[in-house]
Amino acid sequence: MGEEIPKIIIGRLPLYLRVLRRLKNEGEVYASSQELGEMLDISGAQIRKDLSHFGELGKRGTGYEIEFLIEKIRQILNINQVWNIAVVGIGDVGHALARYNGFVNRGFKVTAIFDSNEKKVGTEVQGLVIRDIKDLKEVIHKEDIKIAAVATPASAAQSVTDSLVENGIKAILNYAPIYLKVPDDVLVEYIDPAIHLQKLSYYLG
Amino acid sequence: MGEEIPKIIIGRLPLYLRVLRRLKNEGEVYASSQELGEMLDISGAQIRKDLSHFGELGKRGTGYEIEFLIEKIRQILNINQVWNIAVVGIGDVGHALARYNGFVNRGFKVTAIFDSNEKKVGTEVQGLVIRDIKDLKEVIHKEDIKIAAVATPASAAQSVTDSLVENGIKAILNYAPIYLKVPDDVLVEYIDPAIHLQKLSYYLG
Repeated sequence: MGEEIPKIIIGRLPLYLRVLRRLKNEGEVYASSQELGEMLDISGAQIRKDLSHFGELGKRGTGYEIEFLIEKIRQILNINQVWNIAVVGIGDVGHALARYNGFVNRGFKVTAIFDSNEKKVGTEVQGLVIRDIKDLKEVIHKEDIKIAAVATPASAAQSVTDSLVENGIKAILNYAPIYLKVPDDVLVEYIDPAIHLQKLSYYLG
Repeated sequence: MGEEIPKIIIGRLPLYLRVLRRLKNEGEVYASSQELGEMLDISGAQIRKDLSHFGELGKRGTGYEIEFLIEKIRQILNINQVWNIAVVGIGDVGHALARYNGFVNRGFKVTAIFDSNEKKVGTEVQGLVIRDIKDLKEVIHKEDIKIAAVATPASAAQSVTDSLVENGIKAILNYAPIYLKVPDDVLVEYIDPAIHLQKLSYYLG
């Protein structure tokens, strides 16, 4: 494409996809930017501007064809394929991720789970055997894993991250309540419930 | 203030707060909008514009005084107090929330946990007794709870949400992988790991 798309726009595409899928499930065929905007608390103009970075995806009058736009966004986000995901740390959050059924048809599949606790290693969660963290390198390479979730206690999160990065992981979903140091070419997304609650408490004042 | 602040700006304030706290922990006293912007992948101009909605919070040349700005944002977000949180559904995610230590000093405390499973009711998690979902009304009123997390299976999430709303809950953090229908005066934030992964996979294409 040549042009570098601002990160903030990329960050909105998954949200557009989620509402488009909801509309599709409700039997809708077309959606206007206004309609999408109302569902997302974003202006219709912003949505049109965001999507215009990727070509002419809608038509004046009829709006966006939902199924076409879903496919287009899936292509842009590289989720018209399935990415293998490793989860490190099989406590409450790790279990929840291994069992999560919200990944189906959304581009991801948890295919490897790791823990350092000898009592857990070898047991199964959702049909997956918990592997020893020592086998990280072997499994990541064998399964061609590029994305990992860090769900360890805060005290272990940085060292786990270091070894993930060393073994070629390029994107990390971090559940530990700490800031992770990574090289510039590795991306981290933070899952932090306090951030979401703070957005809500503003409106309860 | 009179002026209604766009939701997208409110949504960024918790992120500003998180990096400001990190800088404070590292011993910093002042931060420029450029510095904050680089840490957040947002332009310095955007940060200055966002914060200008709340008065003159920084000074040309020196930037923002970190401790002052932290206090200001805490006031704006209404987290210079502690909000009691109810968690409904004590499976993996509910357990993780009850035990989460990332809420401390950030405005929230899990004070009530509920499940419908008789085997779980009466047992303890992190010093809190799991209450029967039937006691929702009584506990919510007694503890003056306005915010709840829904961590039930998808099949139960809407009916749990309906009874939370009926009992005065005004803000919901939803972990179930479904869309929740709520009245206009109730806010929902979705915690959806697939959304975060989709932001990452764009860059791995």
